[in-house]
Parts: sequence; structure tokens; C-alpha cells
Amino acid sequence: MFTFNPAFEAPTGSPIRELFKYLAQPGMISFAGGYPASDLFDREGLDAAASRASQQATLCLQYGPTDGLAVLKDQLVQLMTRRGTACTPQALLVTTGSQQGFDLLLRVMVAPGDVVLVEQPAYPATLQALKLQQADVVTVPVDQDGLDVAALTALLESGTLPRPPRLLYTVPTFANPTGATLSLERRAALLKLAARHHFLLVEDDPYGDLRFGGAALPSLLTLADQVPGSRDWVVHFSSLSKIVAPGLRIGWMVAHAEILRRCVVAKQTVDLCSSPWTQAIAAEYLASGALERHLPRIIDAYAVKCRALCDALDAHLPGSIAFHRPAGGMFVWARLAGGQDASDYLRACIERNVMFVPGVAFYKDNIDAAALRLSFAAPGVADIESGVQRMKQALEGF
Amino acid sequence: MFTFNPAFEAPTGSPIRELFKYLAQPGMISFAGGYPASDLFDREGLDAAASRASQQATLCLQYGPTDGLAVLKDQLVQLMTRRGTACTPQALLVTTGSQQGFDLLLRVMVAPGDVVLVEQPAYPATLQALKLQQADVVTVPVDQDGLDVAALTALLESGTLPRPPRLLYTVPTFANPTGATLSLERRAALLKLAARHHFLLVEDDPYGDLRFGGAALPSLLTLADQVPGSRDWVVHFSSLSKIVAPGLRIGWMVAHAEILRRCVVAKQTVDLCSSPWTQAIAAEYLASGALERHLPRIIDAYAVKCRALCDALDAHLPGSIAFHRPAGGMFVWARLAGGQDASDYLRACIERNVMFVPGVAFYKDNIDAAALRLSFAAPGVADIESGVQRMKQALEGF
Repeated sequence: MFTFNPAFEAPTGSPIRELFKYLAQPGMISFAGGYPASDLFDREGLDAAASRASQQATLCLQYGPTDGLAVLKDQLVQLMTRRGTACTPQALLVTTGSQQGFDLLLRVMVAPGDVVLVEQPAYPATLQALKLQQADVVTVPVDQDGLDVAALTALLESGTLPRPPRLLYTVPTFANPTGATLSLERRAALLKLAARHHFLLVEDDPYGDLRFGGAALPSLLTLADQVPGSRDWVVHFSSLSKIVAPGLRIGWMVAHAEILRRCVVAKQTVDLCSSPWTQAIAAEYLASGALERHLPRIIDAYAVKCRALCDALDAHLPGSIAFHRPAGGMFVWARLAGGQDASDYLRACIERNVMFVPGVAFYKDNIDAAALRLSFAAPGVADIESGVQRMKQALEGF
Repeated sequence: MFTFNPAFEAPTGSPIRELFKYLAQPGMISFAGGYPASDLFDREGLDAAASRASQQATLCLQYGPTDGLAVLKDQLVQLMTRRGTACTPQALLVTTGSQQGFDLLLRVMVAPGDVVLVEQPAYPATLQALKLQQADVVTVPVDQDGLDVAALTALLESGTLPRPPRLLYTVPTFANPTGATLSLERRAALLKLAARHHFLLVEDDPYGDLRFGGAALPSLLTLADQVPGSRDWVVHFSSLSKIVAPGLRIGWMVAHAEILRRCVVAKQTVDLCSSPWTQAIAAEYLASGALERHLPRIIDAYAVKCRALCDALDAHLPGSIAFHRPAGGMFVWARLAGGQDASDYLRACIERNVMFVPGVAFYKDNIDAAALRLSFAAPGVADIESGVQRMKQALEGF
């Protein structure tokens, strides 16, 4: 009866959100969600911030500037400075979660048919956004050190791309889904490639602060200052969703002024402004120093949970499931060593009240059907241990 | 240096937001904004709602469903019922302001080059969203009874449209900018046209509850139940921005299930979900009955302000500025009777510390340069009187 745009004729929703119905199954232990742990939210700090914010009623309740409240932008600039990147409020746009930032960027920069490079396996909402924008997505493989920059170099120099790529999307630190972190050498090489081939290097960095092992690495944005000609090509996204709370819906982007001002114009028609109320709460929270006080507790808890998951996998499923221990973030990327199909395995696991996300959700092509993503962020340590035992039982009867 | 999408090569921002810089001029009296009055926000009711919401910390702080929190959807369904429309939670999508709803609809339904009909003069962000989507916008004139349905009928039957229109956008009740309300006869005729010609009838209804004069009229959505075949073609947007507070960024849309589920898929990639925190506050606010208690105060205040503005225009500028008294909403649409250019007049007014929006901002074509929009919502009654006196002085020296 209705005529829809081509990309929306038969749309498929998020493959991960499709799994949500099983979460309601009594006794379910889930490694599936990409949600941060609810019991680690800084309720006290956020309540205090909300109280202070509500005293500025007009700021919270009225429309705000499209690019974000000045008080929040100042705090985010300070946060970026602590992370090693000098930037100005003018170079920063507050978004309704970093997901919105990527969407605004695509609108401004990517036309149907444009070539976009994406690390693979990749965050499914990125693949979906590109699909709906009708981009020509070309995938670049990832290994335990992150994006395979040698493979990317070969691809760029092969002449096989139908046209020059507009941008490359990567989560260089504690990637979703692989948990991998791009090495320093690869970071520098990637920046050089962006500067040479003139594609936007889109760095999505929601997890970078969640490091519980290994040495800190500079973000691509920070490192760009040392790689001549690269800084203009970096578009950096970050978010309070994983380090404070997703319910704020506060992300931000840092990009070249010419890109940013167009994203502001796009945002005027998309949602006018992100909620000034949650922006004011976030500004008060950051200004109080609560993030620095509370974040170590989240990191410590995730370290314990990650170790519990990896130790349990080693103890109960040795030789059956291969994985690398991540140094931060929320995810362990694993693979059924026997090459079984993880979607079939998931069905057996759901019968035993444990779940994860099968790898297929993270691929556009060259699917590794034996891969799976386990998030250790939400479940407690006891549940992590029980969950892996159930996975063992499910694999035995599989 | 960068290659942008065609619509973003040389983007122009909101013409109204361009005027913001003059708001900072000391002593400025502004009739320009489309902002609700900050001093009429129900601070007490919202503080109480925020307190109750924050007791459900996980609900507020965690990710929420893309289509909206169930508790809020239930309250919005009840609100729609009080407005005369039966709808179900499944037929309602919570959006980050109603602006987002329109944007989602365009993504799902309107491809570059598609014909879209828009009442004119029109809300500028609507024109901008359509421009960025590269729609082929065809305008339909408006008079004091709203959209000129006879002109629309003639247009549809003339065979002059390059292709069948995909949708028609209208604010049928207390329109922005004209303040006009579509008559009951025209509403019925418009619904019949949508059913006959198979275009989506997009009803934007942020102001409908702000009635301070005349008899209530059914929304197009409500009336559709009485016009065979029309209900499926109505897409209804509403918002808490004008009746509670824009800082919540809570709007909603009601549409056919096939349209709505695609908008949900689009929203997954746009911002995942609207802030669950402000959704929870809004749900608590509505559940407490605070809207019904407080809204009459806003309506009464706007009635007084509207009368003050219209009386002052009659007293100080008789014969110089023509206008119709609206029966609700936030705007008076006026016209310099001498046919002078309102943009020039605005410059003279800004020198005397009073401002408005020149009509040109609301037109895509056939611009009436003598038109201007005056909002009575934000300034106090004394400022309204002073502002009009300044407008008189500016006109004398013009």
C-alpha cells in the first residue's frame, strides 16, 4: 500500500535486539548485551549532579544550542585534554549518543554508492547505518592487534576499489566485538594512509577509558598531531554511555570545522538539540570530579569480571573455545575451535539458560560462523562462572 | 579539501537561529523566538517527577527500548485518548522531539526528487529537512482558515505535479507561523483528498492543547475515523515541548504499523533510543496528573499575552500592520499594510531593541516580503506593550 525508500522496503532490525526476548526467560544468564553493568552506575554521583542541575531550571527545561550546552562542552574539552587531546569547544559537537554523530557524518559526507571501509567484524549498528545510507561497504579484516593495516594498504594500492573511499570506520581501542586494540605502529601507519589517500579516519572510542591491563595508547586523534597532514582527516567519536550511563544519551564528536558545522546544520533538522536536561546533569557530574572518582570502580569490576570469564573458559572449555584476553572494554571475542556454527550453538545454550551473540551479527561478508561475542560487563562473577558451565554442558550435547 | 554530499556543499543554517545573536543585546524585547515561556514551566511538578523517576535508577540510566519506555508510551496513549484518539502503544513511537519523527519519516518514505507538498508559509525546519532530503517541495497556500484545500484540490487535479506527491505537511491547529486553524470542513476535505490520492497526510500538532479561544476541533487523526479510507494515510506528530518543556526532548508519532516499524529501524541507527531518563521523568509527570493541573495556567497566560500583543498592535499600529487574532498557540502572523520589506523593518526595529522573525524565513517561493511572525509566548505583558511601542517608533522613522 505504501511506497518506501529502497533501503526500507524490507528492513531488518538489529540482530542483537532480536535476542532481547530471551532475556526475559527466568534464570537466563546473558553474555549477549552490549550494556554496561547497571549495578555499577554511580547513582549517588548522578543523583547529586541531577540535584544541582535542576537548580538551573531554565537551562534544563528550555531549548538549548544545537551544538550543545556551553557548560557541557567545556567539561568535555577538559575530558579530552585529560585523554591527551587538545581541542576547543568550537571543534566539539554534543550528540544524542555517539550513534547520532556517526549518522550525522554519513548524511553530510556519504552519498548512495560511495565506498566506505569498515573493519570487520564490526559493530552491527555501524553496518546497518551504512546499509540504510546505501553506501558501498568494503570490509577490512581485523586480527588480535586490531585492524589489519597491511591488508588495508594492499587494498588501497590494488586499484580494485570501485572508487576512492570516503571514510574508514574503526574502534581502535577495545573494539566491539573483538576486544582488540590497535597497536601503536598500526595507529601511525593508519594515520599516514588517511593523509595520503584522503579518506576520513572515523575513530569510535566509547571504551578507551575502560582499560584494566597493558599500557595506555594514544587515540588516533591524539596521535594525529605527530603524523603530518593527518589531523584534518580524523573524525573522533566518544560517549558517556559506557563510562557514566547510556540513559543520558550524551556523545560527542571532534572533527574539522568544515565537517562539524555541516553536522550542526544536519542536527538542526534531526532533533534541534540533545536534551539540555541530561546535558546539564552530565556537565555537573563531570565538573564535580565524580567521573575520576567513580570510573576506577567500574574498571576494577570489569577487570574482575573479564578474568572470571576468561578463567572459566580456560577451565571448562579448554580446547573447545579459542579467544584472546582483552586489556579493557566489555567484550571477549571467541571461536568454536571445532568450527561449529555459533548460531546453532546459541540455540542449544538458550535451552540451558545462557546466551551470547553469534558472530554472524558482526559481518557483512566472509562470515566466520564459528565466532561469538561474550560480554562480561553485565553479569556478576558467580553468574559468569555458572554461565560458562552451562555453555560447557550445551557444547557436550551439541 | 573535503567532498560533501550535494545538499551539504554550502548549507545554510536556520534563519531564525541566525537572529539569536541579537537576543544578547541589552534590553532587547523579542517576539522572535518559538520558545515557550521559561517562567511558565511547571518547575515544582517537574522536580517532583524527576525525584520519583530517579528512584528507578536502572530505568533512567540504562539503554531503553528504541520505540520508547513502556511507562511513557502508556501515558502518551492516555493523553491521546483524552484528546479523542484511540491508539495503542504499538502504534506510537517516542521520538527525540517531534522534529526527529519528521526526519525519520522522510528517511523511510521520501527519496531525492520525490514530490512533497507543504503548506506555506511553513515551519522553517520542515523546509530545511525536506531540502536536505532533496525532496521536490511544492507549496500550497494558507489563509486565515489554514491550508487552502480548494487550491490543493485544484493542484492535485491539474496534472501539473511532476509525479504523485508522497506526503503533505501541515500544522492544522494554531500553525507556525500563521497561528491559523484549519476549519472542520477543510479537515474532512483534506482527509478525503489523502484517501483518494494516496498521499500521507502529516499532521504536526505541537500546539493543539494551547487553545484559549473558540471551540475545540478534532485533530486530523481523530477525524480520520469518520472519513473512510483516510486513517491509514494520517501520520500524526505531537510533542511535550510546548505543553511541558522542550528540554525533555520528548515527542511522539502515531502512524500505520508498516510505517512505524520502519521508523523504529531508522531510529536504531539514528540514536538507539531517546533518553530513558527524561522519558521516565515525563512518564511520572503525566502519571501524576500534573499536566492537567498546570496546563490551564500556561493557556491562561498565553491568552493574556496574545490579547496584550493584539491590543497593542491595534492601539499603536492601526492600519499599519494587519493581522488575525489566533485562538491559541504562540504566534501572530502579521503583514506590513504598506507592503514594506519586513527584513528592512526588522533592522530598524533591532536598532530600537525589539525584534521578530521576517516572513521570508517561512517561504520556499512566492515570498511575501511584507509578512512577519510575532511570538507572544516568551515576553511578559509589560514588555509586549513596550515592544509594540518600539515597533511603532521604528515604523515612523522607516
